[in-house]
Amino acid sequence: MLGCILARLKGFQKLTCVDEALETWLRALQINVRTVTVPLQEALNRVSAEDVIAQEDLPRFDKSAVDGYALKAEDTTGATQFKPATLTITDSAEIGAKQAKQLWTGNPIPKGADAVVMIENTRKRDDGKLDVWVPLAPNANVSRKGEDIQKGETATKKGTRLNPYHLGLFAALGNTSVKVAGKPRIAIIATGNELAKTGTTPTANQIFESNRVMLSAMCRELGAEPVDLGIAKDDIDEIAEKIKTGLHQCDAVVTTGGTSVGGLDLVPDAVNNTGKPGVIVHGIAMRPAMPTALAAIDGKPVLILSGNPVAAVIGFEAFARPLICKMLGMSQEETRPIVRAVMTRKVATALGRRTFVRVLVTQKNGEFTAEPVSTRGSGTISTMTRSNGFVIVSENREGLAQGELVAVRLFGTVETVKVDV
Amino acid sequence: MLGCILARLKGFQKLTCVDEALETWLRALQINVRTVTVPLQEALNRVSAEDVIAQEDLPRFDKSAVDGYALKAEDTTGATQFKPATLTITDSAEIGAKQAKQLWTGNPIPKGADAVVMIENTRKRDDGKLDVWVPLAPNANVSRKGEDIQKGETATKKGTRLNPYHLGLFAALGNTSVKVAGKPRIAIIATGNELAKTGTTPTANQIFESNRVMLSAMCRELGAEPVDLGIAKDDIDEIAEKIKTGLHQCDAVVTTGGTSVGGLDLVPDAVNNTGKPGVIVHGIAMRPAMPTALAAIDGKPVLILSGNPVAAVIGFEAFARPLICKMLGMSQEETRPIVRAVMTRKVATALGRRTFVRVLVTQKNGEFTAEPVSTRGSGTISTMTRSNGFVIVSENREGLAQGELVAVRLFGTVETVKVDV
Repeated sequence: MLGCILARLKGFQKLTCVDEALETWLRALQINVRTVTVPLQEALNRVSAEDVIAQEDLPRFDKSAVDGYALKAEDTTGATQFKPATLTITDSAEIGAKQAKQLWTGNPIPKGADAVVMIENTRKRDDGKLDVWVPLAPNANVSRKGEDIQKGETATKKGTRLNPYHLGLFAALGNTSVKVAGKPRIAIIATGNELAKTGTTPTANQIFESNRVMLSAMCRELGAEPVDLGIAKDDIDEIAEKIKTGLHQCDAVVTTGGTSVGGLDLVPDAVNNTGKPGVIVHGIAMRPAMPTALAAIDGKPVLILSGNPVAAVIGFEAFARPLICKMLGMSQEETRPIVRAVMTRKVATALGRRTFVRVLVTQKNGEFTAEPVSTRGSGTISTMTRSNGFVIVSENREGLAQGELVAVRLFGTVETVKVDV
Repeated sequence: MLGCILARLKGFQKLTCVDEALETWLRALQINVRTVTVPLQEALNRVSAEDVIAQEDLPRFDKSAVDGYALKAEDTTGATQFKPATLTITDSAEIGAKQAKQLWTGNPIPKGADAVVMIENTRKRDDGKLDVWVPLAPNANVSRKGEDIQKGETATKKGTRLNPYHLGLFAALGNTSVKVAGKPRIAIIATGNELAKTGTTPTANQIFESNRVMLSAMCRELGAEPVDLGIAKDDIDEIAEKIKTGLHQCDAVVTTGGTSVGGLDLVPDAVNNTGKPGVIVHGIAMRPAMPTALAAIDGKPVLILSGNPVAAVIGFEAFARPLICKMLGMSQEETRPIVRAVMTRKVATALGRRTFVRVLVTQKNGEFTAEPVSTRGSGTISTMTRSNGFVIVSENREGLAQGELVAVRLFGTVETVKVDV
């Protein structure tokens, strides 16, 4: 019933499920991953665009894993604290029978040696000889050539978000740079006569525009480069002009506002005026962000978000996140960190809508709880700053029960409260 | 027994517990949080250095939360689909009895109105009048002035890591910039004759240096600014010279290598030659990273890490992370995202040592498992790239059981595997 009324009044033929909407949209797009080679120092959080193959063994040679003495393992057979093996300390390049050579961690194993005894398990005697009071197996305390990574092995697969340790591994393999996906350029356009720029004086009916800075930061978090194209008035030509600029300069366009209703529903029309196929999906079975529209112009994505800040954020999360991951060449959508937490209160949700419930996760004595953050509409930005994650309630549920264990996708820091110390 | 041997051979009086070591070190430091005002566009992931107070109400006026008609709630009493309330549509600035005025989401509520009926619950009749078929309570579908944040209220507390939504809230309040903590400058020095710079040709006994790029990236992740001071040879004067440069240019100094044993244990001595009090703790009851030393020179921190890459990373995690959080003015250490997962295998750890077990967390059909990543020594960097988190096993445990539910601190992406679709 509601669906029909919406169809009549808002021009939605029907509400499309999130998964179906996303799939339909992505199919209509032509996404080419650009690549660029960057020094390791600038590669943090970039996504690798090639399998990184080890050009040599790591370690490059057998080396000592401890501080101690290189020796032949067989010379320590049966050694105990009461009956140590006694070896002659040598400084020569090669170890003979019953000889030992002092090494520090990382030093190459000298020829003839096949094990290292830890310095703690030895004693240098007054006569200069070395007592060893543990028996060693061959290769004991030796880091074998290639044990970390072997020449020709894949160190890191294409499509990996690079953390500090990937960079460390590449450096250890002698690399100075890595080929990564270019940053997708995302044009961001806010629309609406009611919007005043921060730093200006708004009229009595205006509010400060806040979506551009927020969506730009979300782009940066994912490794995309936002291009802020400013605010357009509720004027179909002005909006279309900005969209054209965005399509010309960038890999994707994101708009906010002007998508909810007939009277001022200018953005979908402006997009359709710009090129083909235009709007593909309009009206999504989700809450918030129902008025979101997905469009394509000559294979380039246009994401039409609600002007309500929370709806804009959730629409971006649901559609721009998987899009950007794909533009970065990742094989699957990178999800936010997920924490399991217990709901402190019940929450009602609408059957047939995928609902994004904002929650505040707290860790008390190691237990995680999720407190739903009350909201009176998708315009209340402070519900995003008073929460640190969201729970996705599926379309076939009517809510979450108190005490239910839920998966929270985190977007903020979790505070730790020690109730008893 | 082991402790005594270590004391004799390695110069450690005893091994200090991680918590005690950290506390002793932080007490010896003088940490001043620098502040800087940055535009919102550059404030992502910075830490706020002031309580941000709302300078006006948000919203600035009562506004409509929906597309519909403003009216007097009392005029809809008893309205049903069979017996709708019939109102006269007006365009005037003030609403009289039995009048309604069309509004879009975000429009100010006109004088005289106290509720908004959703457009879906109305019908415009042929005679131009409006039928409303639901009864409304006062304030229905109205976003009240100040309901998001009230003038004078704290929008965000000092010491908050700013995410996109904080920036959006600040913009909505009309702010263009925010005062944040300055980035702590961290000097990074690698030491060791065995180290070759990437891009050069190593000698037969040399390995490529990989700690600087890795620790620099870890600094960046936390919001600090790394200053790479290069590689020092195993020469006490050369090391001391670089440490002096670091203390002069930066807020803290981090070194790697030259801290494990007597023979080439040059860094603690070099630090002690540089000023007072010098090394405060040397030898920590943890694994890996036991040879870590904590020092201070005139209140500035010097963190002396092992040269083994994994030990360097874990030592940084245990000591530099809380240090940098403090330098950023955060009231508590910011932990990595924590996921609860089930151990796929048991792991043995040493009693009396806090042990950092690397694991690979995978999500299969919504369940998280943690697979310990086998390691043969703290030099194996690939154990960090084959894992995506670590479990901290406390000093009073001897291991983790198979099937045990553990808290994993994540440093990498969690892959989702759908076993049955």
